[in-house]
Amino acid sequence: MTAVRPRVAIVGGGFAGLWAARALASAPVEIVLVDRGNHHLFQPLLYQVATAGLSAPDIAAPLRHILRKQKNVEVRMATVIGIDAGAKRIALDDGDTLEFDYLLLASGATHAYFGNDQWARHAPGLKTLDDALDLRRKLLLAFERAEAATDPAERAAWLSFAIVGGGPTGVELAGTLAEIARHTLKDEFRRIDPASARVRLVEAGPRVLAAFPEDLSAQAKRQLEKLGVEVSLGTPVKDITSDGYVLGDAFVPAKTVVWAAGVAASPLGAMLGVPLDRAGRVQVRPDLGVPGHPDIFVAGDLASLMQANGRPVPGVAPAAKQMGRYVAQVIRARLLGGASPPPFAYKDYGNLATIGRMAAVVDLGRLRFSGLLAWWFWLVMHVFFLIGFRNRLVVLLNWWWAYWSYQRAARIILGDDGREPSASE
Amino acid sequence: MTAVRPRVAIVGGGFAGLWAARALASAPVEIVLVDRGNHHLFQPLLYQVATAGLSAPDIAAPLRHILRKQKNVEVRMATVIGIDAGAKRIALDDGDTLEFDYLLLASGATHAYFGNDQWARHAPGLKTLDDALDLRRKLLLAFERAEAATDPAERAAWLSFAIVGGGPTGVELAGTLAEIARHTLKDEFRRIDPASARVRLVEAGPRVLAAFPEDLSAQAKRQLEKLGVEVSLGTPVKDITSDGYVLGDAFVPAKTVVWAAGVAASPLGAMLGVPLDRAGRVQVRPDLGVPGHPDIFVAGDLASLMQANGRPVPGVAPAAKQMGRYVAQVIRARLLGGASPPPFAYKDYGNLATIGRMAAVVDLGRLRFSGLLAWWFWLVMHVFFLIGFRNRLVVLLNWWWAYWSYQRAARIILGDDGREPSASE
Repeated sequence: MTAVRPRVAIVGGGFAGLWAARALASAPVEIVLVDRGNHHLFQPLLYQVATAGLSAPDIAAPLRHILRKQKNVEVRMATVIGIDAGAKRIALDDGDTLEFDYLLLASGATHAYFGNDQWARHAPGLKTLDDALDLRRKLLLAFERAEAATDPAERAAWLSFAIVGGGPTGVELAGTLAEIARHTLKDEFRRIDPASARVRLVEAGPRVLAAFPEDLSAQAKRQLEKLGVEVSLGTPVKDITSDGYVLGDAFVPAKTVVWAAGVAASPLGAMLGVPLDRAGRVQVRPDLGVPGHPDIFVAGDLASLMQANGRPVPGVAPAAKQMGRYVAQVIRARLLGGASPPPFAYKDYGNLATIGRMAAVVDLGRLRFSGLLAWWFWLVMHVFFLIGFRNRLVVLLNWWWAYWSYQRAARIILGDDGREPSASE
Repeated sequence: MTAVRPRVAIVGGGFAGLWAARALASAPVEIVLVDRGNHHLFQPLLYQVATAGLSAPDIAAPLRHILRKQKNVEVRMATVIGIDAGAKRIALDDGDTLEFDYLLLASGATHAYFGNDQWARHAPGLKTLDDALDLRRKLLLAFERAEAATDPAERAAWLSFAIVGGGPTGVELAGTLAEIARHTLKDEFRRIDPASARVRLVEAGPRVLAAFPEDLSAQAKRQLEKLGVEVSLGTPVKDITSDGYVLGDAFVPAKTVVWAAGVAASPLGAMLGVPLDRAGRVQVRPDLGVPGHPDIFVAGDLASLMQANGRPVPGVAPAAKQMGRYVAQVIRARLLGGASPPPFAYKDYGNLATIGRMAAVVDLGRLRFSGLLAWWFWLVMHVFFLIGFRNRLVVLLNWWWAYWSYQRAARIILGDDGREPSASE
């Protein structure tokens, strides 16, 4: 075949986009994968970078490297600034225009403050590697500031941490932060006792890990409390400032507030000019196509789709991978003339969440467990799914070390204050 | 003894400051170690972070953690904004004032442009972890920009790299960059051939690695050329812009220029109000004391001292460690009434420089060698001196992996363009 092959544009190198590109390896197409970063990120371990357990490169791999042997893919590092769904064209920030025959939009989600964008300054969220490094810096600096503080109230405020949002990310951050305060920093300060730090997890709903069965939510709460986290349920945060937050009618002093309460879809969805749901996601058809544009698909966190059981497909990595692979299947069927696959159905293999040192919850449907066994299960699954042999080995080594020493490998403050050599100008 | 112990203030947690603090572990003093960062940095491997071989936390460790068991040390993360040598007081940027009985100033050096500060924007240097991450980003982005470029001249300029300065840092960067272009990025791009990149090392003097004997300099040049580096000797760079540099009368297009040509002492030396040498270093007495201030010492890259052989003590890690330990010895003798140690004498155990994959030069005085054996020697010595068991293991693992796969573990672009998930706003 000497004719020009149809071009599939994929926007986003996350789980949905990358798995779609791989599933089209042997298809008679020319793929362009566009991402504004140069790497695929293993987002489930992002909280470990934020809490200084892993380095940024441990959980990321260059997209070019992952796809170097797949000759029908071209990787473009660029930001999409416009989509013309009718003319089938994408505009990139480097001035280039990309025409496509098929488009998969998989640009994911970002954190959202639900109309309180002024909170972003005081309560950063966690979606990217840069977010994680900023958060790491903020958490480690809080203990430094507490040590330097002379006023007892100021010192207490620096030792007061709040995580807003009791989903998986909030629970992971709160549990790990409590471990850092109680164990990792032991003996290192002379004026403060890091173990006296208060770590609060603030959830507006009635329980943490709302996606899990109620008994596992209760287990998770107990495990968090055992690690030293104070869990507040049923009351939403009303305001966040640089000095603390308002819960109900009370102001709680806390110099460090982290936002883990909500996500909104990538703004690229709005460029399609089709109906979006409340969170900004694209309401796709059962084949993940966009209404009115049969050659445009949406997958991953940006897609909104109901399952047969009346619940939405969850915004988790396995769903994104399955969606990416499914779209590849649909495109192959169209091109090769085979039967279209049946409507997308999410296969739910279970749900895991880690809480902290040797604490996790696992929901495999009929089988549910928590505690140490769940933690080992979580660890094996996450290391197994990490891309790249080297990353797995390094991550395992870091965890083995953290487990025995209670230490964290990446407690390095980067950014303006993190300069070497030492105190100068 | 219930009297208040004399206070030793140490400014800078590099090799000089940290080794001094450790050597005072059993002395009847109260030590305050001030650093503007939170970590000790193993600077000899900084170029590996810049060239994506290692993660920032691989070559750094929190000062608090290193010194946690030494109860007579307090670590302060702060920037020194003033020194009153007469009143024996230091002013910190957090508003605190620190009185001292003895002061060791060991705040090191930074890179210098010798009156051409406008070059800093176009040709960044390499002294801190933040510098290294910025440089990594710049090097990796250059290949991305070349891939996106449509104009052949622009593409060539993005594939043109220059390292200014043929000292150890310049040689390491040039050799490693050539390896990245020729091997690491193989097969990853579709429009450019990374191996066609030109890596130039520009040295104003007559040879590279001027601190080494002439035969090893010649060896190093040959090894660089074998790795694909074009070495230019004897002509200084006259100007640097965003598009290239001027060498002699010729403008050489190069979108990426790195500055490895000069260091200047930390500006803190000037706060002492004593004579400085041309590079801003403090001219210390044979006991490393500051003229006119017998209780103030300077060690490491900030100190200027002639050896008995008429050559200055070099600005290398072993000299800084020896100076730090020596100052501790002087202070102990003063306090405990023992004999003062003889004037400081630098013990030169040899000089190593690495060039690239399996290439290095070693000068142990009578014994000199280069090539693969030198590279292994260099590797063993550097891993051995790395602080912390975990760091050594992780660094070895990364190198073992790099050696076999030609890959680099940390090829992740961090900063504004490195956001995940993918292309959006």
